[in-house]
Amino acid sequence: MVDLTQLMENEVFMSFASYTTIMLSKMMFMSIVTGFYRMTRKVFTNPEDTVVFGGKGENAKKYLRTDDDVERVRRAHLNDLENIVPFFGIGLLYSLSDPDLSTAILHFRLFLGARIYHTVAYLLPLPQPNRAFSFFVGYGVTLSMAYRLLKSRLYL
Amino acid sequence: MVDLTQLMENEVFMSFASYTTIMLSKMMFMSIVTGFYRMTRKVFTNPEDTVVFGGKGENAKKYLRTDDDVERVRRAHLNDLENIVPFFGIGLLYSLSDPDLSTAILHFRLFLGARIYHTVAYLLPLPQPNRAFSFFVGYGVTLSMAYRLLKSRLYL
Amino acid sequence: MVDLTQLMENEVFMSFASYTTIMLSKMMFMSIVTGFYRMTRKVFTNPEDTVVFGGKGENAKKYLRTDDDVERVRRAHLNDLENIVPFFGIGLLYSLSDPDLSTAILHFRLFLGARIYHTVAYLLPLPQPNRAFSFFVGYGVTLSMAYRLLKSRLYL
Repeated sequence: MVDLTQLMENEVFMSFASYTTIMLSKMMFMSIVTGFYRMTRKVFTNPEDTVVFGGKGENAKKYLRTDDDVERVRRAHLNDLENIVPFFGIGLLYSLSDPDLSTAILHFRLFLGARIYHTVAYLLPLPQPNRAFSFFVGYGVTLSMAYRLLKSRLYL
Repeated sequence: MVDLTQLMENEVFMSFASYTTIMLSKMMFMSIVTGFYRMTRKVFTNPEDTVVFGGKGENAKKYLRTDDDVERVRRAHLNDLENIVPFFGIGLLYSLSDPDLSTAILHFRLFLGARIYHTVAYLLPLPQPNRAFSFFVGYGVTLSMAYRLLKSRLYL
Repeated sequence: MVDLTQLMENEVFMSFASYTTIMLSKMMFMSIVTGFYRMTRKVFTNPEDTVVFGGKGENAKKYLRTDDDVERVRRAHLNDLENIVPFFGIGLLYSLSDPDLSTAILHFRLFLGARIYHTVAYLLPLPQPNRAFSFFVGYGVTLSMAYRLLKSRLYL
């Protein structure tokens, strides 16, 4: 057995691990919100899901519709996926490229704050440009990490 | 050149790598299923895709429709993406946090089993709560890894 | 503090980091393209987004529609997500499994080329089988890495 504590004793990496775990858990929470709206509003896409409300055969069809709030949560979830995946990939590699600790933590904090604000702005919803602003903060953080990574370690 | 075998000699990490590779390959397979349904049912979204069936100009339009089974596979695929991404991110960091080997493998096995069952339950479809149950098993596995990781290595 | 330069001095890993960072940045760019089409064509999904064009109350509704080109970019973006996520996960683990440098770089280059060609073929659009071909090249690259990884390090 090999001792892996080396990686997890690195402060940048531990910090990345903590922020990322919180962020991915937050993203997973969107599934619960979607499910909550579906149950309380009785709005489903799959016929078999309506059975809890007595949906069967023709009776199921009245629950098979779309709802503005359900679609809104689903868009917020997809937007999370589209933005947290690049953050995770680029952030992981950036964390391994021996960046300055306080710079790295600043990136992680800004991104987490921006994505939480983005979700709040999307779900309430807050008037624009609240959502656009938080989107671009998160976007800029990821691009900044990508730039720093490529500048120091480009190998094509 | 540096010797990286250190990481891949770690049993937890090797196990994570194996389960994750199988899981991501399974997820990729959903694209093939979608394509298979599209071809056999002649259901397309892009006009240029209908040309294989002689779709051209006005003639293409009859193939541009939605089909319940195609949409079902696409939802299963998106659900995979929404759940396998957090599993991969959290699981990778968890694997590097020096967890107990048998506990870690139990997590990976449960998740893989749950996601395969989820896909089967979605595509057949099996009556609820089969799909819901498998969803929550996978969800719980990822949250359990997140909890263990944050408990031992929180660094904000 | 621990010295992490070990990992980033590994040529395969540095190469993987560079290609992945470029690929994920390219995927993020799809959000900008979507936003560009939405603004120039005045096509929105969220009522609050129409306010920049004076959309308010009933007046907002005329901007809430779908547009073929916007939907096309969104499909290309989702296809990126569905394919770049497995590439990133499997590729990361493959890069850590001590593969041959030139073989690894060949995989990364092929994948990046295939995905860029896929996006071009999707957005123009080019006639089929241009898009299908580039899809399967990228797909094959990821499966090839999965196969090599499982062959050398299977641990279930």
